[in-house]
Amino acid sequence: MNWLYAPAATPSEHYRQQAQARQQQLTKPPGSLGKLEAIAIQLAALQATDSPRADNIAISVFAADHGIAKENVSAFPQSVTGEMIRNFANGGAAISVLAKQLNASLRICNLGTVSEIERIAGVETHQLAPGTANFSRQMAMTAEQLEQALAIGRQHAEQAKTKGTDMFIGGDMGIANTTSATAIASALLQQAVANLVGTGTGIDQQGLEHKQTIIEQALVLHQLDNRDDINPLDCLQKVGGFEIAALTGAFIGAAQEGIPVLVDGFIASAAALAAIHINPSIKPWLLLGHLSAEAGHRHIVNALGLTPLLQLTMRLGEASGAAAAVPILRLACALHNQMATFADANVATKL
Amino acid sequence: MNWLYAPAATPSEHYRQQAQARQQQLTKPPGSLGKLEAIAIQLAALQATDSPRADNIAISVFAADHGIAKENVSAFPQSVTGEMIRNFANGGAAISVLAKQLNASLRICNLGTVSEIERIAGVETHQLAPGTANFSRQMAMTAEQLEQALAIGRQHAEQAKTKGTDMFIGGDMGIANTTSATAIASALLQQAVANLVGTGTGIDQQGLEHKQTIIEQALVLHQLDNRDDINPLDCLQKVGGFEIAALTGAFIGAAQEGIPVLVDGFIASAAALAAIHINPSIKPWLLLGHLSAEAGHRHIVNALGLTPLLQLTMRLGEASGAAAAVPILRLACALHNQMATFADANVATKL
Repeated sequence: MNWLYAPAATPSEHYRQQAQARQQQLTKPPGSLGKLEAIAIQLAALQATDSPRADNIAISVFAADHGIAKENVSAFPQSVTGEMIRNFANGGAAISVLAKQLNASLRICNLGTVSEIERIAGVETHQLAPGTANFSRQMAMTAEQLEQALAIGRQHAEQAKTKGTDMFIGGDMGIANTTSATAIASALLQQAVANLVGTGTGIDQQGLEHKQTIIEQALVLHQLDNRDDINPLDCLQKVGGFEIAALTGAFIGAAQEGIPVLVDGFIASAAALAAIHINPSIKPWLLLGHLSAEAGHRHIVNALGLTPLLQLTMRLGEASGAAAAVPILRLACALHNQMATFADANVATKL
Repeated sequence: MNWLYAPAATPSEHYRQQAQARQQQLTKPPGSLGKLEAIAIQLAALQATDSPRADNIAISVFAADHGIAKENVSAFPQSVTGEMIRNFANGGAAISVLAKQLNASLRICNLGTVSEIERIAGVETHQLAPGTANFSRQMAMTAEQLEQALAIGRQHAEQAKTKGTDMFIGGDMGIANTTSATAIASALLQQAVANLVGTGTGIDQQGLEHKQTIIEQALVLHQLDNRDDINPLDCLQKVGGFEIAALTGAFIGAAQEGIPVLVDGFIASAAALAAIHINPSIKPWLLLGHLSAEAGHRHIVNALGLTPLLQLTMRLGEASGAAAAVPILRLACALHNQMATFADANVATKL
């Protein structure tokens, strides 16, 4: 898995400065477009261009089941993972609607459901196993499965590159995957599970306390608690999910390919955290689509050092929060590229 | 001006409940689309429809000069108002770019600049006066000018209605107009000027203190301080602006015509505040596009009882913050109208 450590390129300081200078010349008070200016400047630096763009968006949703679901940590039955895979492909899920509205490509990738599902047009299947193992009792996956999941994610990034993608978005589906993501974030950040655990798809207070206990016990079992030398790959293998590992591989791969990544919510951010722990050079390539309503997300966001574009109290996953932010990126690019300068428009500058 | 007091319709409780019920049936955990659900439900109730929409967007930008600019309260020279009117029409301003990206109609309406400007294609002109009078010394406008400005705003709403507009957005341009808006908000909310005043286009700390003093003195002069019986029309006449009064008339008119209004930032929110004080029945028809970086905006927002869709630290005016939120409304409608239900998609519901 040596590929994981290959450095991502450094964003172009030349184009960053060019973009900053242009923003100062556009017909508006300096700074008055706020984050829209910052986004355009960041994209110009990442894409090494005078004309940043977010036209061609590649969305990959990775789905898989989780053995930890046996511990009653989710409000929905495990069958929903497979049912939602069909729904993604049939156009009925939130991300299906969003991708269509955005004219974005949408790939659905199934890495392993508890019941093998039929071949579905529009779904690519890599059945690594019938879901991960129950990490409250054993490692979630084998080293080989982890390697496969990471590599599948990387392939999505590589294929996005061949299609001239301006921005990569990775989404997740997997009943019980907030339990896995919470465990990963708690281990990597060495923060109390209580800070990071949330209600996911909608468990009640009793369920939340149970979920917290399950995660705390699993971290002890796997010796992922109270230590500052956690190996992120070891952590993914012990308490991760196939789709989370695929996201991790996709984010690292996208950055290595020079494609900016728009990170979604809680699950994707846990994967981004693992990705940065594995390969810190990818960090400048990550933008954050939104702040999730899932309670622990802000702690992960703070650790990532990212500023969310949207705060719409969404908590769905599937890449939906990142997708919702795409129009903001596009408007930021249009403003940067198309507004007149003070000189062009014969408008007086500041007194 | 009796038209100002005609009540707006009450949003449809029937369609609100229908929309709420549908959101519970869509293939996602209940509530997981957050504000996107709330927006779709609100639009369904306002538009009295099963299929809320934000396709046809009418943007009107009202521009005018302000006599108070003579008191050195802005970072930009007064000539910029006229120069920006040309820039709007020529497609170089932020709102020009945004309107084009959104495929929204954009009307530019000049209500009075210090120097009369040439006839410009795409700009409608009502030269009420060469800007308002300097309200640090006298009333900003006559009762007749106020009536004209309100009526021009109303006409924009009426014409939007004839074009089948789904959503009205009003924007502002006028050097020194944050000074006027601050005075209006301070009078109507009876809040200290210090809470509401901000740097506008970018004055320094000394300029900010001067601006605050100018506003405080004007409120005393016009007997708009320390009283809870402020007449909002009297307030607009004394310390308002032509473009702010036009926005007030447009918002009241749009609500009366049954067109939802997406309110922009600081100036538009001050106009919305005046509109609600004049005619409280319009309140349900107002949505808030964004929270401005202008310091006092959050106080006006709290008073309006609205939740901003975006918080992008924008502070440009021109309707730009509301325009940036349009894609979010469109995605909310698409999700509401196009997602599959649990029954449609054969997905299991919550345990």
